[in-house]
Formats: sequence, C-alpha cells, structure tokens
Amino acid sequence: MTDPSKPTESLALALVQHAMTEDPDANRQASLDGIAEAAARGAELVLLPELHAGEYFCKTQDPDRFALAEPIDGPTRRALSAAAAEHGVVVVGSIFEARAPGLAHNTALVLDTDGRLAGIYRKMHIPDDPGYNEKFYFTPGDLGFEPIDTSVGRLGVLVCWDQWYPEAARLMALAGAELLLYPTAIGHDPNDPADEQARQLDAWRTVQRGHAVANGLPVAACNRVGREPDRSGSGFDAEFWGHSFIAGPQGEILAEAGTEAEVLIARIDRRRTATVRRIWPFLRDRRIDAYGDLVKRFRR
Amino acid sequence: MTDPSKPTESLALALVQHAMTEDPDANRQASLDGIAEAAARGAELVLLPELHAGEYFCKTQDPDRFALAEPIDGPTRRALSAAAAEHGVVVVGSIFEARAPGLAHNTALVLDTDGRLAGIYRKMHIPDDPGYNEKFYFTPGDLGFEPIDTSVGRLGVLVCWDQWYPEAARLMALAGAELLLYPTAIGHDPNDPADEQARQLDAWRTVQRGHAVANGLPVAACNRVGREPDRSGSGFDAEFWGHSFIAGPQGEILAEAGTEAEVLIARIDRRRTATVRRIWPFLRDRRIDAYGDLVKRFRR
Repeated sequence: MTDPSKPTESLALALVQHAMTEDPDANRQASLDGIAEAAARGAELVLLPELHAGEYFCKTQDPDRFALAEPIDGPTRRALSAAAAEHGVVVVGSIFEARAPGLAHNTALVLDTDGRLAGIYRKMHIPDDPGYNEKFYFTPGDLGFEPIDTSVGRLGVLVCWDQWYPEAARLMALAGAELLLYPTAIGHDPNDPADEQARQLDAWRTVQRGHAVANGLPVAACNRVGREPDRSGSGFDAEFWGHSFIAGPQGEILAEAGTEAEVLIARIDRRRTATVRRIWPFLRDRRIDAYGDLVKRFRR
Repeated sequence: MTDPSKPTESLALALVQHAMTEDPDANRQASLDGIAEAAARGAELVLLPELHAGEYFCKTQDPDRFALAEPIDGPTRRALSAAAAEHGVVVVGSIFEARAPGLAHNTALVLDTDGRLAGIYRKMHIPDDPGYNEKFYFTPGDLGFEPIDTSVGRLGVLVCWDQWYPEAARLMALAGAELLLYPTAIGHDPNDPADEQARQLDAWRTVQRGHAVANGLPVAACNRVGREPDRSGSGFDAEFWGHSFIAGPQGEILAEAGTEAEVLIARIDRRRTATVRRIWPFLRDRRIDAYGDLVKRFRR
C-alpha cells in the first residue's frame, strides 16, 4: 500500500481492457481478474472501461434498461472495494448510477487502497448519436470537474464523451489533477469505410494526447473491446475498438493496447510533469482576461 | 479571384515555409517568391511564417532590436498587399508591429485578394523562455480572439505560442472561424537529446491536430526553417524545425513539410467540417454552465 505522505517518484498505472457479455457476473469477474493481474504485475492504480458491468445498452431507447442501474453503494462498488483492499491498489470503476426513480447518471467510482470510496465523478458531457442514445439514460453530471484525492495522488477522472472537451481537461488541471483518466466505450460504425474508421480512431487518440500536451500531465483512456450483438433492434452490432493507451505529459504514447482483451501497464514518472511545465509553462501565460466567452454557446 | 457570394466547395491553402537571413530584402523576396509559386500552383490562400521579415530576434533582450519594428501600414504590409492583388490570393503575413514608442506587438496581417487589409490579429499569448524573450518585445494582444473575414472565408488567425492554448482555438471556432491558421517560429534546443527533440515536435503537431478534432475544423501551421547563427550572445544558434502542416477537421494530416524550404499546398474540402460536426457534434454538448472557472488562474 502506498504511504500518501511519501509519494513515490513513479506510479504504475494499469488499464484493464476487456470485453463484456450479457452475464454481469462474468463481466464483473473479468474486471476483478484484471485488477488481480494488474496488482500482481506491480500496478498501484487500475482503470477499468466505462460501464464495465454489462454490454453497452444505449444503442436504443428502452425504458426497461433502467433496471440495469445500481446505486453508488451497490454490487459494483462493493466488488471493487473488496478488490482494491485485497490488492492494495486504487481502482477507478464505472457504473450506471440509479440516483432516484427516473434519475440516473453515468458515474465513475474511485476506491482507495483500503477499499473506501474516495470519490465519484458524474459524466458531465453526454452524447446522443445513432447507436449511442445516452441522453435518454444519463442525466448530465451535477458535480462539476473536481479531481478526486487518493493515496496515489489527485486523480482527474472524466468519462468517455468528456474526452473530446479541452474545457474538461483544463478544469481538472487547474484544480491540481496529476493525471487524467478516461473510462470509455467507443467503437466504429461497422458501415464506415476503413479510412473513416482509421481517422476516427486517430482523432480520438490525438485529442486526448492533445490534452496531455496542453496541460502537461499524463492521460490514460481505458476502452472496452469486442463485437456486441444487436439485441434491441438497433440494426447493427457494436464494434468497440479497444486501443486503450497511456500517454505522458508531452502526449507521448507510453503504452497502447490492440483490439483484444489486455492488462496494459506503464510506469509514469511523477517528476516529469514539473519538468515539462518548466520547459513549456503554458499555465503561466493563459489570457484569463480574454476567456470570458468560453461560457457562451456560440459567439455569433 | 474568388467570388465571395459563391464559396467554392474546396479551398487550396498554401504554406510558404522558408529560412530567414540578416537581409530583410532577401527575406521579403523569399516570401514573395513563395506567394507567386503558391498562386501559380492554384493556391487561393497563402500563409507565411511568423515574423518572416527577419531572423528571429528574441533570443536575447536588446533594446536596439525595437528598430526592427514597423507600423501596420509599413513595408511588409505594402509588399504583401501588392502580391495578394497581383496574384488574386488572400495572404496571411506576420510583423513586429510598432504601435507607439515603447509599445510593440507580434501581429498577423490578412490581405484580401484586392490587396486590402482585411484585418489584423495581435498575438495574445506571449512566451518568455531561454532563447525566446518575447515578453521583452511584445505587449500581449488587446484585440481578443476574433476571426477575420475574407473573400475565401472567415479565418481564425492565431500566432505561434497561441497554438498551445485550446481556449484560443475554441474561441475562434465559437466565433465562426472556418479554419485555424498559425504563423509560427519554433525550433529545437540544440542541446536537447534526439528523443526530447522528437517528443517536442510531435507534441507541437499533436496539440494543434487536437484543436482540429475538438472543434471540427482544419488547422494549418507555417513554421520557418534553418539554423540562425548566434549574433547577440545567447550562446547558441537557433534551429527552426520546419514541419509546417495542414490538417483536416478530424486532425488528419493532409500535407506536411520537412525541414527544408518548401511551398506546401493542400486542398481543403469545405463541406467536410459540416459532415464531421454532424458525426461528432461536440459544440452541441458543451457544459457552459460549468466552465466558469476557465477564467481563473488556478482553482486551488
């Protein structure tokens, strides 16, 4: 277990990239097996994919799917707490949060090394696109962009669609986040040609590496993998592209997965952020006097 | 010449990447030759490097260097206006602007196809680092982040250090900019090892490609090239890394230069921004209710 009063000079971060099935017990076991493997390989912090308890259910609008939601203090939290405490690692998980009847969120949970819930983050930016009907299921988060303190550091936990928003990354950095972590569930439209699929994958990686550069901190995204069959009449199977990655504070790729299940580990040099920010001190020169219009929908 | 009432479906954009010497006439001629070549090859819009009239003079703090500044309506403006009108192209240039005694800016000039000054942009973010003593020379811009309308479209012109700031790119996009253009002067520290040099170059490219992705619009950066000898006791020569590039609205590289002088041209598909923004409508989902702290220096 890490002593918070003596942060190590490096941090071993693991991403558990795996596939999901219709069986929640099997999914939970895959996550727990991944945490165990990560810990055995020396990880101190473990990041899981978005909504790892089940298949991605937002392909269509189906009121019955709200039965999949669980409270913060539900079976996923308990399983992750037990795993975090057993292995002495910090775990970042993700649930479909039942907050009240008719009110649900897409919520990340952070469990500290003693199993305690260190904090939660409710996904702020909610997509709504063909095959990704998230605005039907998830009320946008109401907790803002606040990092979560743990015994391995101050974590800037965001979720999936947030990854496209420089504002979210910046607000986490300005609040002292030491790294950005994105549980995610993103895939190809199987009808798209290969060149479009390639552009989308690289755009996803590039914008997040850009957050690392702009803020001088490491960034990691953990995606799911696999083809999830059409069960609700959406008309197509979902193909999740994997490619979970860990980037350093210059956006450099430290480790990257393929399209299969994998426990990906990289060791982050904690001193590197300070060094990089001395070379390129972007925070010094922000024109906060001229950024007011960022809270406008559009400027025309 | 382009008829502004009938925007073409594509736009041919040229970057004139070249080296600078101590001789301002030779530098100006290199820029003008590049504009002529670009126009002959079909370009409608031509972007020059930052401060293309001379060697990069900010390596040290030298009051005598203010003699290099010129008013907006100075020799560079006149030369670029003549070239724009002669070739019927829009030109984006860059000057050391003498505004008043003891008050200077780093200013981009945009000349329309009739030679008229369509607008100016004064560099908002000013660096100040070893070899780049820009805060000594340039007062931060006071015109904000406002795109400039031209007969080839609404241009989001920014300058060099601005390229690291997602806020600048976003504000231009929110004001309707159709593409982002960065004149720049950036190079390696010759004392850095090759792996650090490679990370810096890729960080520079990545953060700007990230702006393209986050905002769904094309981005281009035009850098200078060459080694400029130490003339003022900075202790090292400057090595500008070139690698000017044009990226599409998914951050995909459309064209990229090497480390030699080159006129780089790519044809931008104007319809692509609308298509891309329909696939990934990031502007739709911004949490403007939660971005207020972006105008803070730090949140702790």
